[in-house]
Amino acid sequence: MQSTKEHRAFLIGRFQPFHLGHLEIVKRILRENDSIIIGIGSAQYSHTTVNPFTAGERHLMISRTLEREHVYNYYLVPIEDVNANSLWVSHVEALAPKFDVVYTNNPLVRRLFTEKHYEVRSLPMVNRSEWTGTKIREKMIKGENWEQNVPEPVVEVIREIDGISRIRQLSTTDEDVP
Amino acid sequence: MQSTKEHRAFLIGRFQPFHLGHLEIVKRILRENDSIIIGIGSAQYSHTTVNPFTAGERHLMISRTLEREHVYNYYLVPIEDVNANSLWVSHVEALAPKFDVVYTNNPLVRRLFTEKHYEVRSLPMVNRSEWTGTKIREKMIKGENWEQNVPEPVVEVIREIDGISRIRQLSTTDEDVP
Amino acid sequence: MQSTKEHRAFLIGRFQPFHLGHLEIVKRILRENDSIIIGIGSAQYSHTTVNPFTAGERHLMISRTLEREHVYNYYLVPIEDVNANSLWVSHVEALAPKFDVVYTNNPLVRRLFTEKHYEVRSLPMVNRSEWTGTKIREKMIKGENWEQNVPEPVVEVIREIDGISRIRQLSTTDEDVP
Amino acid sequence: MQSTKEHRAFLIGRFQPFHLGHLEIVKRILRENDSIIIGIGSAQYSHTTVNPFTAGERHLMISRTLEREHVYNYYLVPIEDVNANSLWVSHVEALAPKFDVVYTNNPLVRRLFTEKHYEVRSLPMVNRSEWTGTKIREKMIKGENWEQNVPEPVVEVIREIDGISRIRQLSTTDEDVP
Amino acid sequence: MQSTKEHRAFLIGRFQPFHLGHLEIVKRILRENDSIIIGIGSAQYSHTTVNPFTAGERHLMISRTLEREHVYNYYLVPIEDVNANSLWVSHVEALAPKFDVVYTNNPLVRRLFTEKHYEVRSLPMVNRSEWTGTKIREKMIKGENWEQNVPEPVVEVIREIDGISRIRQLSTTDEDVP
Amino acid sequence: MQSTKEHRAFLIGRFQPFHLGHLEIVKRILRENDSIIIGIGSAQYSHTTVNPFTAGERHLMISRTLEREHVYNYYLVPIEDVNANSLWVSHVEALAPKFDVVYTNNPLVRRLFTEKHYEVRSLPMVNRSEWTGTKIREKMIKGENWEQNVPEPVVEVIREIDGISRIRQLSTTDEDVP
Repeated sequence: MQSTKEHRAFLIGRFQPFHLGHLEIVKRILRENDSIIIGIGSAQYSHTTVNPFTAGERHLMISRTLEREHVYNYYLVPIEDVNANSLWVSHVEALAPKFDVVYTNNPLVRRLFTEKHYEVRSLPMVNRSEWTGTKIREKMIKGENWEQNVPEPVVEVIREIDGISRIRQLSTTDEDVP
Repeated sequence: MQSTKEHRAFLIGRFQPFHLGHLEIVKRILRENDSIIIGIGSAQYSHTTVNPFTAGERHLMISRTLEREHVYNYYLVPIEDVNANSLWVSHVEALAPKFDVVYTNNPLVRRLFTEKHYEVRSLPMVNRSEWTGTKIREKMIKGENWEQNVPEPVVEVIREIDGISRIRQLSTTDEDVP
Repeated sequence: MQSTKEHRAFLIGRFQPFHLGHLEIVKRILRENDSIIIGIGSAQYSHTTVNPFTAGERHLMISRTLEREHVYNYYLVPIEDVNANSLWVSHVEALAPKFDVVYTNNPLVRRLFTEKHYEVRSLPMVNRSEWTGTKIREKMIKGENWEQNVPEPVVEVIREIDGISRIRQLSTTDEDVP
Repeated sequence: MQSTKEHRAFLIGRFQPFHLGHLEIVKRILRENDSIIIGIGSAQYSHTTVNPFTAGERHLMISRTLEREHVYNYYLVPIEDVNANSLWVSHVEALAPKFDVVYTNNPLVRRLFTEKHYEVRSLPMVNRSEWTGTKIREKMIKGENWEQNVPEPVVEVIREIDGISRIRQLSTTDEDVP
Repeated sequence: MQSTKEHRAFLIGRFQPFHLGHLEIVKRILRENDSIIIGIGSAQYSHTTVNPFTAGERHLMISRTLEREHVYNYYLVPIEDVNANSLWVSHVEALAPKFDVVYTNNPLVRRLFTEKHYEVRSLPMVNRSEWTGTKIREKMIKGENWEQNVPEPVVEVIREIDGISRIRQLSTTDEDVP
Repeated sequence: MQSTKEHRAFLIGRFQPFHLGHLEIVKRILRENDSIIIGIGSAQYSHTTVNPFTAGERHLMISRTLEREHVYNYYLVPIEDVNANSLWVSHVEALAPKFDVVYTNNPLVRRLFTEKHYEVRSLPMVNRSEWTGTKIREKMIKGENWEQNVPEPVVEVIREIDGISRIRQLSTTDEDVP
């Protein structure tokens, strides 16, 4: 990561949680680039069924997984949402080291970076029938086998933080009188 | 309320409006505690069909009702929403006097306080078929008898602020060309 | 616009985009008033299918159209949303020159200004089957003839900013793995 | 506090801490009005030498003092600063029950309420050589006798929250290398 | 302002108030460009001695002055401060029509636009001993002749809004006990 | 970093820029702990003489330096300021992986973590006459030898981003007429 000619890629995701599809994408991007900046999106959110884990918990999932994989040429950057799309690229640019190319399949992310003249590449499709955050969170709630879809260190982190209990509790119906 | 050993409970609600179910809950909580902190949630919102009344109007409904009931051992605290669940307990702690126990049936509120090691107790169920904000607001809009479901001072406050006219107007269809 | 006795009207819209219905409304309001303040609402939003254009782009659409129409007695004011309805009228009052009357069909806008003792008048209905932002944006996405529903300068501005490409890209399905 | 003809006064302060001057002012205002709304200003701030106490701690100081004084016709309302003066009166109006008169010696508060057509009255001067927050906080830091300038319940609250230790620690020089 | 090849300049100021120096600068910039975007900076502030006038009041000062001067090829855009310099250029770009060149003597503004590859030109110096907001506001407070340093329409606006009374009141010492 | 029994320390600084004193502190902390979380404070600020570098630039300075030093057991977390001290510890907890001990000499940071029952340790004093951000930034502005006080990779990063030109330009006097 030391050369000033390092060619850096940018990838953003919510990583709720970081799963095997994410890991595969990171590895493929690193075949084409010297290093990768992994933006942890919607960083301020947590404790909802869609965003159950905090940015710090997701940071730990990713860094522990990549260490286990002996991947070191990455930068992890939590990125809070801003409420104006027109500011978002500048917001990312301020928080992350400079990058040369953006990988995304999200139409909005693609559009915003394209309007700022970035090169944007599509992500490879990797087993989208199983490896999506939505399906994995559903399995967590229903008590099905979610562990097979995430790296082993992610299982460890979720256990340490009592994550399954959290997402299940959050998924129950609100019975509050007020 | 003077002893430093005062045992305080915390209850949060939106109180749109404060109704007989809320009053019953407050009284039951006070049987088990020296005093109650009543947090007026979503305090910044008003003038929508779901949140028609301002925090100040809800403050008046509650304090006038409790005065009529000769209840004085309470603290009323408006609490604006914060957009990050991870900050919410600290936000409440900064705005309210210290408390020993939380009463809620809301899964998120329960989870957030539990993770911060608070004792959390469930609310009693009190006539949930009639005493809910949603039903009372519907009756206000439809011109049905909502007054029987709220304390008399709440009827007075809503009349003073022309509240029925407000919620009805807000419930009409938007015909705006822009 | 020089007299201190100038009678000013206030009109707010999102103008996504500014269309022939808006132009007709502006002209009719100017028959009853010395000048008009045109508030560009939700000014901070852009790059969504509902709010595709920035406040600056909308500013250009409106000012170029009104110049073509030889209308000069107007004030254009971008107005960002505030997240509390109770602050909104003061927010508008701070950003805009003083005004004497509000034109709107929106129940919330009507209510908020009425509670602050403004005179509020209804907007005339002008060809609502064709001249609505929703329909025009749908036509843009589907490749139908949207140009006939907006003033010619608006067509020019949208071409200059590559607006049709933008709204179509934003309307595609999100295929992002993260 | 029940009559709809209740004449209410509004007073705002930071109450860092609530002292004998404040208590005297509250009593005098209550001689001229049916009830008083006490706004706890700069409610979001704490843990600085100028704003050492949280809104919740100040709430407790004031309510415990007024209970000891057998004063019950008051409303306590924490009011966070907004960063735009033009919104401040509406912000107060949304958080507090309606009021008829404002008591202040602050030129900005006076101006803002006057421009919104409120009646504004001056505060009585009460022993300003001793009873100011600045002097009392200085005494706290220096270890001088600050207790004589505040009501007894305020002394109790500050002891319960370990307040003197807090303000002293905050007043030490920053020795942080970063 | 209709041609798509219109060459636009961007100028930002606080215009507290708009004075003869500002007017001279606007005219000179228009000799070199087809049109000018005038950004009203720190738009959210008002009612302080440094920022006495609201964005709406400043809007009126500028538009009335330019109408009297028969200048029409300008765009007036209030621009609220953002609390992160790294977002500021994008914030301006979202609120204003596109522009080709920036005029400023402010080192920060110059730097921020230069890093985003804008052409930045220096402002001409015009009678800086008299024509500065600071000096004019001092004269207003002291009761000296400030009217000679601003365009006639600005005098009118300030009279209409009772501006001299406002800035004088705000400049008095705070005597508030709380 | 893989064990669930990993003992983690937390250090926060602004790192404007990251210098030899910071590096020495990081190394000493790592002698007492398994890993370190380095919080990049005031992350949203940049382009001022006190905070010249963006969070992303500081991220690069630190990660490149630690790679050169063969230090890998660290987590880098940008932390934006929040405007309420009472929320700050929760804000840090949400953004960072869990930690066991805090290192700081800052009285406020010490107090806030102590009130939340964290163990807080003092930082070692390391050549404070030379290794402070303030002095290094002054040398940058005056053209003196600042390079000797920062790790070699920091010199490289600052050159790549043209950092000296930036801080010098920002330090010049504002000559803006507006």
